[in-house]
Amino acid sequence: MRLRADLLPHGAYSDVVLVVDVLRATTTAVTYLERGAEALLLTATPEVALAQRGEGIVLAGERGGWPIPGFDLGNSPAEAATQTFAGQSVVMNTTNGTAAAHIAAASGKHVLLAALTNAHAAARRARALATEEIAIVCAGTDGRVGLEDVYAAGVLAEYLLAMGDFTTDDGARIALTVRRSSGNPAEVLAGSGHGVYLGGIGLEEDVRYAAQVSVSTVVPVLDPAGEVGDVLRFVAG
Amino acid sequence: MRLRADLLPHGAYSDVVLVVDVLRATTTAVTYLERGAEALLLTATPEVALAQRGEGIVLAGERGGWPIPGFDLGNSPAEAATQTFAGQSVVMNTTNGTAAAHIAAASGKHVLLAALTNAHAAARRARALATEEIAIVCAGTDGRVGLEDVYAAGVLAEYLLAMGDFTTDDGARIALTVRRSSGNPAEVLAGSGHGVYLGGIGLEEDVRYAAQVSVSTVVPVLDPAGEVGDVLRFVAG
Repeated sequence: MRLRADLLPHGAYSDVVLVVDVLRATTTAVTYLERGAEALLLTATPEVALAQRGEGIVLAGERGGWPIPGFDLGNSPAEAATQTFAGQSVVMNTTNGTAAAHIAAASGKHVLLAALTNAHAAARRARALATEEIAIVCAGTDGRVGLEDVYAAGVLAEYLLAMGDFTTDDGARIALTVRRSSGNPAEVLAGSGHGVYLGGIGLEEDVRYAAQVSVSTVVPVLDPAGEVGDVLRFVAG
Repeated sequence: MRLRADLLPHGAYSDVVLVVDVLRATTTAVTYLERGAEALLLTATPEVALAQRGEGIVLAGERGGWPIPGFDLGNSPAEAATQTFAGQSVVMNTTNGTAAAHIAAASGKHVLLAALTNAHAAARRARALATEEIAIVCAGTDGRVGLEDVYAAGVLAEYLLAMGDFTTDDGARIALTVRRSSGNPAEVLAGSGHGVYLGGIGLEEDVRYAAQVSVSTVVPVLDPAGEVGDVLRFVAG
């Protein structure tokens, strides 16, 4: 079995893909499903998100960390954790995470969303589904590698290596090195470039929330019955 | 002063850029200049390279590690080290390194080529030129992060931090972590994905050659008098 980590989204995935955007899209996605949402609809653009408006639909997303005008929610896991979404579908559009999910879905057989909060469950689910390769795809920030995503990729890789034999690529080895050489996750996330940015606009609570490791067993899974188009439908797996 | 490392080429460079493609383009580039070449002409495509043919011109390059048909040389630093290029200009076109140099030159004020072989000299030159930022740009392999380039970025970053104060971005911190957690450079390069590939096609001598640290004081510098077009002209700085 191959374990691959792309420190930025690349494409050409043959089997299972774990999409990681710790600050904050995949962390928030896990939280929406934990808080009762029936499905997550990840859209390619804000315009596609707005076109989903309707009964039982909540629009959520950000640009540059700020909520998108006309949307109901931003992209805050701490805020999502205080609400319930029973009977609702959450439409998500974010700067990096939803784009990474679309790149993953273009080729991957099974696409899961992973964060630190659901890391162990996501690794276990990936291992159960995979027949040849698990690819961890770090969303990054605006086309540049994010320390928080590489750290989370290392946490996922460490769980996976404990579950069986893998050959590892350069990206997986870099992620494991970062994971093993770093301090606690709260410090890593708060010190990352995007963590510092979010702290600066008053969102340090989200950074702290995202640093919790394996506190959730919810894994958002791309609905195999859904089409892969402008909208990706994820359900709790 | 800012120290930035892009683990893949990104663009939008404001000041000094160190382009790194350890296996093998920037290592080979240093060797050509050491062995007497007057200039290096890095072209955007093999076709542009072929169009440079003429008196005193040597064509060098590779695709997938193999020499390009119609070219005089491949991309082998070990081979280049046994020849002399006095009075000649070497036209280079390679899979990743020359493309990274073109991305760097599109915005950077000063563009230098760095390898392990000239790491200390390249760091010193970068520090002398920079007024606000030094960006280390890893070429990677076919759009994916390469361990050997990240390791070399860590070596460069370590030299730079010893020369003065810098703020570091996520990429620089990842590179420093990889550098500080890894074994000796020959092992790192031979164990990297591209190192294994090159070894498999009989080019392990190039991998060994490229693992020598700071054995050269030659730094290829983008000629400030040259135009930035399909051909970038580098001279020994």
